[in-house]
Amino acid sequence: MIILGIDPGIAIVGYGVIEYSNQKSVVLDYGAVTTQAHTPLPLRLKQVYQGLNVLIARYRPQAVAVEELFFNNNAKTAIAVGQGRGVCLLCASLADIPVYEYTPLQVKMAIAGYGRADKLQVQNMVKILLNLKSIPKPDDAADALAIALCHAGSVDYQKLAQRADKKK
Amino acid sequence: MIILGIDPGIAIVGYGVIEYSNQKSVVLDYGAVTTQAHTPLPLRLKQVYQGLNVLIARYRPQAVAVEELFFNNNAKTAIAVGQGRGVCLLCASLADIPVYEYTPLQVKMAIAGYGRADKLQVQNMVKILLNLKSIPKPDDAADALAIALCHAGSVDYQKLAQRADKKK
Repeated sequence: MIILGIDPGIAIVGYGVIEYSNQKSVVLDYGAVTTQAHTPLPLRLKQVYQGLNVLIARYRPQAVAVEELFFNNNAKTAIAVGQGRGVCLLCASLADIPVYEYTPLQVKMAIAGYGRADKLQVQNMVKILLNLKSIPKPDDAADALAIALCHAGSVDYQKLAQRADKKK
Repeated sequence: MIILGIDPGIAIVGYGVIEYSNQKSVVLDYGAVTTQAHTPLPLRLKQVYQGLNVLIARYRPQAVAVEELFFNNNAKTAIAVGQGRGVCLLCASLADIPVYEYTPLQVKMAIAGYGRADKLQVQNMVKILLNLKSIPKPDDAADALAIALCHAGSVDYQKLAQRADKKK
């Protein structure tokens, strides 16, 4: 199963593509779609759309995993990032790929086994789980890989749950 | 000039299409693209995308006018509405239509001549300016027509400014 993980945004959209089978994950690609601050917003959204569509066409993922966004106070930032996230979800939806959303807590629990794991701990676990020589850069790409890995883990969990249901 | 005004959102996206020439505006269409709360978010965004694309294909607007969003506190709502707004801006961008953004204050000033005009005053002015028999429904459609009218007014203003520049 090919999973596209996305760390949504507008200035920088992290992505990580992994192939998951037999409880092992292999990296196919990772990086970030970036847009410039001085570019008009509609054009930046188009760049995000086009960048993600290239990835979807190239890897044909069976699942897209996206982080849920949380903001405490800054509604202005929330709107800006929300606009980018909307385009990310749309790309998956237009390609008929199911979207799975995970909270930062779920990602940390899945990757580091600890909900309060810090950024570096999560990034180190991404490196180890994917057998990489160094921590993927930029941070947004490492985050996107973590989200993809989180979904990979949850696929197995769902299968186990289904098997348990059948046995009942 | 055909102008598509959009009141962005996710549950209900108001739209208003006007034709503006010789300082007069005529309504071509108005209404709302609506999505259901129980529908998964990626699908709702796809419905907004498809609804707006139908309008863009039908009326081929030369300008898209969208309200700027302001939220004081509720970052959760800001993200949700931001996601819908991102898709609205993307639709215009993919069709190579220039996007103009107006604050609620600018819209009120343009339509009612008064920045603190209430909703009903603005809606009544929309009715009068567009020579309609009643206030357009739903509210989101009336808002979208107000935004389109706001842009129509600003087109003339820009032309005047350009002429003044040439005379210098």
